[in-house]
Amino acid sequence: MAHSTARVRRVRSASTRRAEIVRLAAELFDQEGYHQTSMETLAARAGVAKPTLYHYFSGKEAILREIHRDFIEPLIARHEMRLTTSMRPRQLLLEAMGDVLELMDTHRGHVRVFFEHHRELPPAAHAEVQARRDAYETHIEAVIERGVREGEFRAIDVRLTTLSIFGMCNWAYQWFQSEGSMRPREIAYLMWDIVERGIGAPGTV
Amino acid sequence: MAHSTARVRRVRSASTRRAEIVRLAAELFDQEGYHQTSMETLAARAGVAKPTLYHYFSGKEAILREIHRDFIEPLIARHEMRLTTSMRPRQLLLEAMGDVLELMDTHRGHVRVFFEHHRELPPAAHAEVQARRDAYETHIEAVIERGVREGEFRAIDVRLTTLSIFGMCNWAYQWFQSEGSMRPREIAYLMWDIVERGIGAPGTV
Repeated sequence: MAHSTARVRRVRSASTRRAEIVRLAAELFDQEGYHQTSMETLAARAGVAKPTLYHYFSGKEAILREIHRDFIEPLIARHEMRLTTSMRPRQLLLEAMGDVLELMDTHRGHVRVFFEHHRELPPAAHAEVQARRDAYETHIEAVIERGVREGEFRAIDVRLTTLSIFGMCNWAYQWFQSEGSMRPREIAYLMWDIVERGIGAPGTV
Repeated sequence: MAHSTARVRRVRSASTRRAEIVRLAAELFDQEGYHQTSMETLAARAGVAKPTLYHYFSGKEAILREIHRDFIEPLIARHEMRLTTSMRPRQLLLEAMGDVLELMDTHRGHVRVFFEHHRELPPAAHAEVQARRDAYETHIEAVIERGVREGEFRAIDVRLTTLSIFGMCNWAYQWFQSEGSMRPREIAYLMWDIVERGIGAPGTV
């Protein structure tokens, strides 16, 4: 019994430490540049020995993959949770836009580092990351498609609309400022308002 | 007379060669990575000696600045030309969106390299580049503002609308494919259609 409690604690603390390293790496990559930051620098900053760092991650690419996981998994999970509710496409879209904009406040370094360096991931890691991105994109596409089918949205090009909405929201990584006058959720309201009127079926807007 | 003709030819050929190097560098930076490409590699690929390359550009940052100039200056010039016509805000917006999306076809490598590395420019170069980006952004903001003032657009948040439109269009550097089924101009029509209905004043859409 005592043994298994200790084990749980050890596991939890390893995963906490791992998460802490990822958070720190995202910050460092973002501020100093992904290429300019070595595993040595990161180990020093994290206060761990280099072999310990390599025990957690095989290299920077493994960390970059984790940085992506850190923000894409909660996005997917939140959306999937809402799919179990009675929310309509309009609301699902607003919540998803809010989630992405929220990221610019909570994970902007993560998002920036990922967007600017994901092409440098080795093929297997890139494919894995792409699969999760596709999963999320497909979710949003399905919401828009359902909106069209159920008459909330007009007969739009679903794919292009999805890409347009992602563009509006994702691009905020280039300009969002946490100290700015608008909170992510307020930005989401205004962007959603443009989209909602832009794609709403006549008579429903 | 003969002398001055030769001089003109020499000047023209130097500027052609310079432009050719920028184009090549954008391609190389995009394919091999900005950090992975050295001035040596670029000189070799351009078929010039390294000192010759340094004669044209003091380093990679100078080339990155030129890559930006290559696509931002025509954008600004085209927009300013249209401002001398009788085009209304709605049309000006469509044309500007078309211009940006067109870039994804003609200068995608340029755009990608610039977006992903502009933060690495030295402060003076970054300020210069930022001033030109601001100039273009201000132009688009002014169009939207005029649209609101003249009753074409509803009372929207002009700044956020500008950023949303740039987001939709700029983000295409992540997904646009020249071999895709839609041409940039057609994509612009559909995106503009969302924006136009999204921000159009009631009764004008």
